[in-house]
Amino acid sequence: MKFNITQSAFVEGLMKVNKVISSRSSLPILQGVYVKATEDEIVLTGSDANETIIHSIPVTGEDVVVEETGDTVFPKQVIDIVKKSRKHLSIDLDGTVTKIKSGKSEIELNCLDPEEYPSFVKVDEKEPDLVLDAAQFKTLVSKTSFAAAKTDVRPVLQGVYYNVTEDCMNLTCTDSHRLAVVKQKVESKQAIQMIIPASSLDNALKIFGMNGEIEIFSHSDNALVLKDGPTLYQTRLLDGNYPETSRLIPDSFTSVMKINRKEFLEGLELIKEVANSNTSNENGVAKIHVNGVASLSSTKAETGKGKIDIPYDSLEGEQEAFTISFSVKYAIDSLKALDCETVDFSFVADMRPFLLKPSDMTDMEECQLILPVRTV
Amino acid sequence: MKFNITQSAFVEGLMKVNKVISSRSSLPILQGVYVKATEDEIVLTGSDANETIIHSIPVTGEDVVVEETGDTVFPKQVIDIVKKSRKHLSIDLDGTVTKIKSGKSEIELNCLDPEEYPSFVKVDEKEPDLVLDAAQFKTLVSKTSFAAAKTDVRPVLQGVYYNVTEDCMNLTCTDSHRLAVVKQKVESKQAIQMIIPASSLDNALKIFGMNGEIEIFSHSDNALVLKDGPTLYQTRLLDGNYPETSRLIPDSFTSVMKINRKEFLEGLELIKEVANSNTSNENGVAKIHVNGVASLSSTKAETGKGKIDIPYDSLEGEQEAFTISFSVKYAIDSLKALDCETVDFSFVADMRPFLLKPSDMTDMEECQLILPVRTV
Repeated sequence: MKFNITQSAFVEGLMKVNKVISSRSSLPILQGVYVKATEDEIVLTGSDANETIIHSIPVTGEDVVVEETGDTVFPKQVIDIVKKSRKHLSIDLDGTVTKIKSGKSEIELNCLDPEEYPSFVKVDEKEPDLVLDAAQFKTLVSKTSFAAAKTDVRPVLQGVYYNVTEDCMNLTCTDSHRLAVVKQKVESKQAIQMIIPASSLDNALKIFGMNGEIEIFSHSDNALVLKDGPTLYQTRLLDGNYPETSRLIPDSFTSVMKINRKEFLEGLELIKEVANSNTSNENGVAKIHVNGVASLSSTKAETGKGKIDIPYDSLEGEQEAFTISFSVKYAIDSLKALDCETVDFSFVADMRPFLLKPSDMTDMEECQLILPVRTV
Repeated sequence: MKFNITQSAFVEGLMKVNKVISSRSSLPILQGVYVKATEDEIVLTGSDANETIIHSIPVTGEDVVVEETGDTVFPKQVIDIVKKSRKHLSIDLDGTVTKIKSGKSEIELNCLDPEEYPSFVKVDEKEPDLVLDAAQFKTLVSKTSFAAAKTDVRPVLQGVYYNVTEDCMNLTCTDSHRLAVVKQKVESKQAIQMIIPASSLDNALKIFGMNGEIEIFSHSDNALVLKDGPTLYQTRLLDGNYPETSRLIPDSFTSVMKINRKEFLEGLELIKEVANSNTSNENGVAKIHVNGVASLSSTKAETGKGKIDIPYDSLEGEQEAFTISFSVKYAIDSLKALDCETVDFSFVADMRPFLLKPSDMTDMEECQLILPVRTV
């Protein structure tokens, strides 16, 4: 393998694939970067076995020239070496040693056997199942993935349930104490159902730009592939059946309060300081008492107590006053995800889940459901 | 204790004293903020027992009003609560509970007994031993403190030796493998010698602004006090005798090479990637071979090898070529600290310390001494 490449293109690709490479990987070869030079492209691969990023640098004939095809696995140091190199690099593999020349420097790196690098799912890049606007995809994920379970008691709950019908894309996420749902109209050639690890989706968001389009490939049984231009991102899916959640969402309410989202959120952020005894313990509980004003409060024996009154816009329904207790963190997470001017706080009964959603619906349907906390 | 205060002044003070407060402090009361309101000022204190910050907010009669003097110890949550409060706050201590009112919020915080808060060295603020330009102080510290020992095998070596004579201030720091020295002319009323923990000096730099002056008080036996306007910073000193270092610095050399500092540094940064097998292990060794060009190289069995040629400006002395091996990290640290265009690399013999210093001396004298590494 022998090629010449510009430093900027090489660094960009290496930084991308590095996002999933862990220096604590149990498979030592996955601590490195797999590099394959063909006549058309130089392909870089990084993986932690669950998530894989494949980045392709096209051979331009000018700045990027492949003189000899081949492949190898670079040790992780290659990334910092290329970062600190001059504008042009020449890469020359001889046996297991790669010579990296740039300016007046010459580095010889011991490489690993490419035969040992795991092979990953192949994708037919010509036929994506769905093409989404990148910013839209980010929005959909950020409104749901936070609600996934952080423990592996029920592994499927660590995922986001992704369900595409002919004309609608649904993302659902629950940890069994709260539920986040978004629905967006799309045109899809086929139905898709899969459970994507929430942490993988969050990583994918960091890798892809906010511009352009993301192509989604899901015809492989156990993997999801996302493609943004020259970069492929692949993650394993979670096995199992996602719980049926649609019947959890109440369809009639005793009271619906419209309230300014920012003021509600700021009030909760203040109450949080009393409700949680410290930052590592986020299970604090707040109470909302609605009766002419929305009064948020919390009492914690160690810390003290706090109260803040927030005016609301309107209250409709049969009940003119209500009280409910809930996790401060869950309410803050939900209000952050909603990202609108005014929210509807829809109440059924003090021991029934309540709903938060935008007062003004856009073309995207969304709702955040939170189970109350039993106090007394 | 009862006072009214603007949120901005309160947050500023709390953030300052918070820099030394540790939530892992073994003395629970030191996890809090000691607050004392007098007729003239509201004084906030934070401490981790070794380092203490005392910040004074003057009573203005308008925005800052003390209605009732007194003192208490707030729990650490007060900082986030004040951050999230409105423009004005009223603070009212009743027994052990403090009521914090702001806008439509009311927080009651359980406070700690102020009698239990340790008392700290008192300083006569009218008589500083020395007044230094803040930026100058930062420069002096940043050119020396990095060379302190990171382990406590010899505790005094974790400090910077601060020695002021009538007309000269000397900062010396060594971990016994390298030595950093700066000398600056000053006018001082009295001689001062003390060993200041390097980590405390680094912290002090983060607390003080780059503008204005820093007053230095050292007449207390076991503490150093620095004052920047309304903020006092105090640290314990290290006990013991600092080693005599002046005779370590050679006064004649066989060769002196003048070389561009930035190119030398960039070369070492590249070589470092080969010399250190990973980022947590920074004991890599590089070799410099000077003979027409300065050739830096390193070989590491696991990684491979690297070499880079750097042109130098001139080489003077009896020897026209020399070779010496040294810690890459130490050389990088020293070159970063020097912060000049061209450095003098002064060589005696391959097993004798070498010296790095600016080719053009300013009114500040400085030098970095590094012991070679025996390679065979």
